[in-house]
Amino acid sequence: MSESLPATPLLDTVVVPADLRRLDKSQLRQFADELRQELIHAVSISGGHFGAGLGVVELTVALHYVYDTPDDRIIWDVGHQAYPHKILTGRRDRIRSIRKGGGLSGFTRRSESEYDPFGAAHSSTSISAGLGMAAGRDLLGKDNHVIAVIGDSAMSAGMAYEAINNAGYLGSRLLVVLNDNDMSIANATGALNRHLNELAATNSSEHTLFQKLGMKHIGPVDGHDVVALVDALEQIRDGAAEPVLLHIRTQKGKGYAPAENAADKGHANTGFDIATGALKKSPAKAPTYTAVFAKALIAEAKADPTIVAITAAMPSGTGVDAFEKAFPERTFDVGIAEQHAVTFAAGLATEGLKPFAVIYSTFLQRAYDQVVHDVAIQNLPVRFAMDRAGLVGADGATHAGSFDLAYLCCLPNFVVMAAADEAELMHMTATAAAYNDGPIAFRYPRGEGTGVALPERGEVLPIGKGRIVRDGKEVAILSLGTRLQAALAAADALVEEGISCTVADARFAKPIDTDLIRRLVRHHGMLVTIEEGSTGGFGAQVLHFIANEGLLRPGFDIRTMTLPDLFQEHDSPEKQYETAGLAAADIVRVVKTHFVKKAQARI
Amino acid sequence: MSESLPATPLLDTVVVPADLRRLDKSQLRQFADELRQELIHAVSISGGHFGAGLGVVELTVALHYVYDTPDDRIIWDVGHQAYPHKILTGRRDRIRSIRKGGGLSGFTRRSESEYDPFGAAHSSTSISAGLGMAAGRDLLGKDNHVIAVIGDSAMSAGMAYEAINNAGYLGSRLLVVLNDNDMSIANATGALNRHLNELAATNSSEHTLFQKLGMKHIGPVDGHDVVALVDALEQIRDGAAEPVLLHIRTQKGKGYAPAENAADKGHANTGFDIATGALKKSPAKAPTYTAVFAKALIAEAKADPTIVAITAAMPSGTGVDAFEKAFPERTFDVGIAEQHAVTFAAGLATEGLKPFAVIYSTFLQRAYDQVVHDVAIQNLPVRFAMDRAGLVGADGATHAGSFDLAYLCCLPNFVVMAAADEAELMHMTATAAAYNDGPIAFRYPRGEGTGVALPERGEVLPIGKGRIVRDGKEVAILSLGTRLQAALAAADALVEEGISCTVADARFAKPIDTDLIRRLVRHHGMLVTIEEGSTGGFGAQVLHFIANEGLLRPGFDIRTMTLPDLFQEHDSPEKQYETAGLAAADIVRVVKTHFVKKAQARI
Repeated sequence: MSESLPATPLLDTVVVPADLRRLDKSQLRQFADELRQELIHAVSISGGHFGAGLGVVELTVALHYVYDTPDDRIIWDVGHQAYPHKILTGRRDRIRSIRKGGGLSGFTRRSESEYDPFGAAHSSTSISAGLGMAAGRDLLGKDNHVIAVIGDSAMSAGMAYEAINNAGYLGSRLLVVLNDNDMSIANATGALNRHLNELAATNSSEHTLFQKLGMKHIGPVDGHDVVALVDALEQIRDGAAEPVLLHIRTQKGKGYAPAENAADKGHANTGFDIATGALKKSPAKAPTYTAVFAKALIAEAKADPTIVAITAAMPSGTGVDAFEKAFPERTFDVGIAEQHAVTFAAGLATEGLKPFAVIYSTFLQRAYDQVVHDVAIQNLPVRFAMDRAGLVGADGATHAGSFDLAYLCCLPNFVVMAAADEAELMHMTATAAAYNDGPIAFRYPRGEGTGVALPERGEVLPIGKGRIVRDGKEVAILSLGTRLQAALAAADALVEEGISCTVADARFAKPIDTDLIRRLVRHHGMLVTIEEGSTGGFGAQVLHFIANEGLLRPGFDIRTMTLPDLFQEHDSPEKQYETAGLAAADIVRVVKTHFVKKAQARI
Repeated sequence: MSESLPATPLLDTVVVPADLRRLDKSQLRQFADELRQELIHAVSISGGHFGAGLGVVELTVALHYVYDTPDDRIIWDVGHQAYPHKILTGRRDRIRSIRKGGGLSGFTRRSESEYDPFGAAHSSTSISAGLGMAAGRDLLGKDNHVIAVIGDSAMSAGMAYEAINNAGYLGSRLLVVLNDNDMSIANATGALNRHLNELAATNSSEHTLFQKLGMKHIGPVDGHDVVALVDALEQIRDGAAEPVLLHIRTQKGKGYAPAENAADKGHANTGFDIATGALKKSPAKAPTYTAVFAKALIAEAKADPTIVAITAAMPSGTGVDAFEKAFPERTFDVGIAEQHAVTFAAGLATEGLKPFAVIYSTFLQRAYDQVVHDVAIQNLPVRFAMDRAGLVGADGATHAGSFDLAYLCCLPNFVVMAAADEAELMHMTATAAAYNDGPIAFRYPRGEGTGVALPERGEVLPIGKGRIVRDGKEVAILSLGTRLQAALAAADALVEEGISCTVADARFAKPIDTDLIRRLVRHHGMLVTIEEGSTGGFGAQVLHFIANEGLLRPGFDIRTMTLPDLFQEHDSPEKQYETAGLAAADIVRVVKTHFVKKAQARI
């Protein structure tokens, strides 16, 4: 450890919130300070989300002090600000394991603690979940409190509005704490943000949007004054049984100068030196896929003035920030609003623009109907750049991009690509820019590229055509996307054992390269498909084709390697591939089943 | 035709909106009256959506009179109120063909007319699409107007809020006409509705929710006063380039007494007698799946007080209205808010309730991320009753429930069922009620059942087990859901040709019945799967299993019959099955490929 543990005499007396509730209100300021020091030390070691947790130290203390958790339910929207909550709810001893394999999740999680009544990692779900809990409580004749804590940026998602609209209508007792820190991961966008700033500036809770939607609106309250928070919460707790919104003002990164001063308020990191704030970073071996995509998109946009980029509040995560620097007027950050982002892109496409909707694979799930109804059915040329496809390491199951191949390949009119390395990503970006006949999507993983040489600009690929990467004889491995390196490693290992493998990169999950597949089937005794995605995606498309074309023949074997049918825990990427059964050794094992079978057939 | 055509001297002079714009403003009242009479006559013949169109006759006239369509863009949210718009935009001659095979679509459609700049059939997309068009216009340096017309109920969807929040932020010129008819298909729910009623009652546009979100708010204006509308629109058109919301008050069903007096304001029908309003209805041969589901759910809820039902503004379409009559306090209509509906259900499940989220297959697409992130990952026992699965006849491509099998079967923890007939639907409702280990979904089609005898209450089915419906020898047809009758008919036809078929009903798309599949593969020369869904669903799960278990053997054939890879037009159900290649004759054809192949092998 880089620094000695902070002295935390009060915090040391608290294992669970019931211990906290034995403290005097006058001790809470010191307690909050100790909790903050503990958090700073913990994240300096473990890395993880940071700024959001620093901003809610006092709120966390006040909520657990006033409310009778776990019988009262606290739902932390997004969950990444719940590190102080985890420290206070019996998980302090494991807090430095956060986001590590076998360690605590970086988000809230029902299976982790009874103090986590709802797992939240995607934004803006907390009010809906809380309202469900409140309605359930009412039906069961119980009397507990339900509190949803949600940030101002999470309020840009329509789902939060749907929930407030319903809460104001149902009238059940529910507390929504609006944690207004005047920022999302990037800068907050949207008119709501302006409204909140006005309320804060005038210290007003008159004529607010939330009142119009049937909620009692209290605040703004200084979210770093733990005593003021306790007073406000006690009043609400003991007040009328109705839906209440408490508006608090906080500062992301509060109490740790390097975070307060950072542009992203110390959103997340991989550990740091407490004294200087210097981040621990392992040296990059290759540029990230995100950076390569941004570079490629900028190159295309220089050549084509109709290219525009859309992000749903993730400019830095998606590389759209770099695009924005080059083309500010051609960049749209619509807030955490994926549904709107996609249909907005569809609207742009109808006018002849070439929109790139740059959305993580897992978040595009939020706009699935818009993808189907507004883009695919109308065959509009919206480009979907799907970052973070496949497994995502420390972010875990909630952020894995496992399903995009299944949920997109079933859609008529769609072209779906997956990049095997960062040069391929450049080609696919160029291909998407050039293709204007309908929707096109391309997926690429989290993290660093493979280190291949990069061209100045990508080449336009022929639609629906894969490529042979290595010629072999007995077995064909048809890889889609990221597992190509593993397939080549498996082929190396297999040739040592006298098994000659062809390795092909499908490039396209839809349309599949039927000529290539016919050739692979005809000239090999076995075909293995591999993809970093669930069943029902690329492998399924290949199986449907081979079955319905009647290409199966005596002695021919086919296997599909996909992600397993379970939600994988957070872990290191290498471990995750092993757990998934998608490592090179797994390919070797699968290929060998063919030869075992042939040997058995001979006996 | 039941009545003679109405006299429409002014309307007869108008083929396209440019003709309308040649009329004097003083003629518009008569013109609107004629348009209304034409609409009433047309729908009396064709059937279709009705009340919504009657409510916007004056608005339609005013918009096309004031704005320079098609260069100015009018986007009709949901699209089902666009019949008057179709009459005015060159489609009057085909209006009586609406929703018929080969006829006009019941919604707006880009491929149908240049006056339909955006296809809308699902609710609440219009502002996002319009804002995209406005942003595109600004980038291209053009000067046209963009108008989104949206109903008050469609405003309960978060997507509309996301778009307004973004519009208020971007500041582009965009007109949102809020068509406040104080009803959705059922009664409007939600706090927003109360807010709008207050504004209407006080004739106020001060301190409105939309102002808080950065839009200029004008109104309320009487939406049946065409001259007042024209005046208001002209002022807006010639005013500042900014986002404006025009609040108009209309009456659904306006001007046709039987519709005005109906509980649903004449939402949709299948044709009627103009004089009496008596509906033309073909006699029902069997109860609808929707009615059977409602009956089954009520039976389960009588036995289990923890069962609750959730609808997203579709109580009558889903049968939740019947449930509500029996259990008002256990029914939640959350508005057009599928995202919230699902996570609200998840919240209820955490408290020990047994929620049934009753949502059309096509609309569940709107809550896909909530299904994944809030339900599946947490393995919460939310029940999804997916009505209108598969092809949907006159509603066409936008409402087809084609993808649920693909987008659900890929999810870990999920159980997915499909009902082969209405008795099976009762069993599956009972099974879902009894199953409390995780999420479970069941799909069933639009329309009437097959007429089988119904039990008082469904039986709980063993999870993941199918059933043999007919024993045969050479070929096995494994049907999931609705195509079972076609499979049996095909088996009848095949036995005439000397081909003996086993027919099985899989019941479960996930988990698949691996024992049954092994038996079918072992004892038959061919396996044909059939489902009313896209690729990547049930057939794909069967293929993955058979391939990866190494069950393929020399001489064995497998075929998967799914919906084709295209968005099918509206048509009669029978025609749609033929187009899809899922009719009994198609099954016969597919089975015969096996025998052709065998014969060829012998030559």
